[in-house]
Amino acid sequence: MVANPIPISTLRLTESEHAQRVGRLAEHARKQGAAAALVFESPRVLYYSGFAFYPTERPIALIVTAEGEQHLFVPRLELEHARQEGFAQQVHHYDEYPRLEHPMLVLARVLGELGLTGRKLLADHDGYPWIFGYTGPALSEVAGSEVERAYTFIDHQMSVKSSAEIGLIKESMKWANMAHTLLQRYTAPGVSETEVSMRASMEATLAMKDALGSTFKAQAMGFFNEGALALYRGQIGKNSSLPHALTGNLEFSMGDVLVTGATAPVWGYLSEIERTMFLGEPNAEQIRLFGLMKEAQEVAFATMRPGARCADIDRAVNEYFSANDLGQYWRHHSGHGIGLRNHEPPYLDIGTEVVLEPGMVFAVEPGLYHPELGGYRHADTVLITATGAELLSYYPRDIEALVISV
Amino acid sequence: MVANPIPISTLRLTESEHAQRVGRLAEHARKQGAAAALVFESPRVLYYSGFAFYPTERPIALIVTAEGEQHLFVPRLELEHARQEGFAQQVHHYDEYPRLEHPMLVLARVLGELGLTGRKLLADHDGYPWIFGYTGPALSEVAGSEVERAYTFIDHQMSVKSSAEIGLIKESMKWANMAHTLLQRYTAPGVSETEVSMRASMEATLAMKDALGSTFKAQAMGFFNEGALALYRGQIGKNSSLPHALTGNLEFSMGDVLVTGATAPVWGYLSEIERTMFLGEPNAEQIRLFGLMKEAQEVAFATMRPGARCADIDRAVNEYFSANDLGQYWRHHSGHGIGLRNHEPPYLDIGTEVVLEPGMVFAVEPGLYHPELGGYRHADTVLITATGAELLSYYPRDIEALVISV
Repeated sequence: MVANPIPISTLRLTESEHAQRVGRLAEHARKQGAAAALVFESPRVLYYSGFAFYPTERPIALIVTAEGEQHLFVPRLELEHARQEGFAQQVHHYDEYPRLEHPMLVLARVLGELGLTGRKLLADHDGYPWIFGYTGPALSEVAGSEVERAYTFIDHQMSVKSSAEIGLIKESMKWANMAHTLLQRYTAPGVSETEVSMRASMEATLAMKDALGSTFKAQAMGFFNEGALALYRGQIGKNSSLPHALTGNLEFSMGDVLVTGATAPVWGYLSEIERTMFLGEPNAEQIRLFGLMKEAQEVAFATMRPGARCADIDRAVNEYFSANDLGQYWRHHSGHGIGLRNHEPPYLDIGTEVVLEPGMVFAVEPGLYHPELGGYRHADTVLITATGAELLSYYPRDIEALVISV
Repeated sequence: MVANPIPISTLRLTESEHAQRVGRLAEHARKQGAAAALVFESPRVLYYSGFAFYPTERPIALIVTAEGEQHLFVPRLELEHARQEGFAQQVHHYDEYPRLEHPMLVLARVLGELGLTGRKLLADHDGYPWIFGYTGPALSEVAGSEVERAYTFIDHQMSVKSSAEIGLIKESMKWANMAHTLLQRYTAPGVSETEVSMRASMEATLAMKDALGSTFKAQAMGFFNEGALALYRGQIGKNSSLPHALTGNLEFSMGDVLVTGATAPVWGYLSEIERTMFLGEPNAEQIRLFGLMKEAQEVAFATMRPGARCADIDRAVNEYFSANDLGQYWRHHSGHGIGLRNHEPPYLDIGTEVVLEPGMVFAVEPGLYHPELGGYRHADTVLITATGAELLSYYPRDIEALVISV
């Protein structure tokens, strides 16, 4: 067998893009007078190191020294996996949690070997999060170091996407769009939400995997999300007025208002589509609420440009709701950042003064929820460009396309 | 339409069982001289209040007063949902996160209205976890109270299951068993893990929902886990030697060692089955490793009884591994608690001195991982009884049943 004369093109981000990210974090550590930066939250570890893993009660951390060296700290069971998958120069490990010596004490020893003991450290948080009942000491306790929290820098860095990251989000959008197309196609009276959701998700996932082949990996860091996904989450009929209803074994009936969702992880990156649909013809008041929701979203779109603040977008939406006497149907802010996490900072919220920059990507989703007439929410994925904003989602937004006639 | 003359039997736990749980937490608060106990982690909120929700950057907390009153604290978008689903006597809310006033400050005000300001509080953690980039002050900061962490009490309470909870785990097992049966049936050379997993999971989920009907709800608190699930997570061929591999778009080949997993959420409760299988006949060394893994698991089973300590089980397994010179293939401890979380304390680990009690449920899964010959792990769900232990899983464990001949 002869090897390919040139490498196969892949969707995966390059090692050099990861190295640039790490370089910026190291530079930030130097500016703050810190000897290293530690990252504990799994999507942030993936962001810098390229190592995707299933987070459990066993602590995992990435150490980026001020010199730009990358060290992963993992339990024994992730050692080979971390060496195989990530770009870290070195992988350190401990045996197990809780075991006889707490993993955070082993981490302290690794920090000592790296000459970091007692020196100022940055960290996204002062220790590992409490997943699956994990408990343990703070990083500052075991390291004998001053620990300055650095999530603001890290989350800002993650919020501004490179062209390669935007490419992954656009790829995600294609398969979210396919899954959503099938979700709408299969929805009919008497069918269960579960059947429609699983069938649409399976078909879109298999198509995605056949189309992208070896250039694709989900890297979705959970057991349940390995491909394209379209679903209702119980937002069916009257339950559509609960913004975060859970799937409830419901069957569709004529007259239902429906709120959907779709995404697909592509090397960890996510997009988002949500649509308000009707099973059968909506009544006049439902048409009116749909139109107001859609216009509120367009108010948000029109406000999104570099230099605007997150609060400006949410304020414009709130003013539109007030002007139309819709305050009683308001339930949540206008949207959120999206990338390696399906929600992430910055939030499109009147409390967020973060300035929009080219490369930021948001799910824009102001909603209206009427206890009797149902929930009304579209979510679209919006990229901030050099001069304004661009819709990455292209699923139809108009009511004509979203009424399922039977 | 005439209402049913008597109520429909349902799998759901009763309000009185939830009230008993809350009563025990309130009693614990009184014994500790605390005025209330707060719970922030979502499965713990579900455990006491019966309210299942999708955890996001928006803080949610349950307040149990020393008098046994139950108050939920939720964002505006969960208000109706929390009133409809949970057993809390009262639901308080804040507008949104981050908004102009931080939700933790609103929580402090609610604590004030309940007469709890400045009084000693128990809490599973001193504030809300950092989900999706959430940041905020500690509970102790905003409440001006001494906050004593109470996760040991709470996790112990959750670890000892009632007969009704055991019933839900047994129900979960049936559908995990069905999904796993189909997973094995559909596995063949040239087929992708994704197709087999999604097809098996969909068929088992639809069967489960048809069989259980309105008596079933997943309450699984995530978007991706609404029914029975069987999968490979990438543990195929050589990759089976990575205990926590991620799904990787792999196709099955003759000669593959396979490590599976299956579960199904039933009112939030989970069971666990994992099996080592072979596609085609294993070689002599693979048969030997399979046998040693299976025997190590039986060593664990034989050690499990009331009064034994978690460490005893793991120590017995480790001694068995040492006696058979298998230390180099060891990667993780012998198992973990299971219930509303797919891993939970106590862990079957030499570092855990917790005593086994009747009603505790564990996933028992010592494993061996050979870099060339693959991974070997069965996981079975084991209930501690009054006199010993009982296997809740009944999927075949013998090699004869787990070789897929083509």
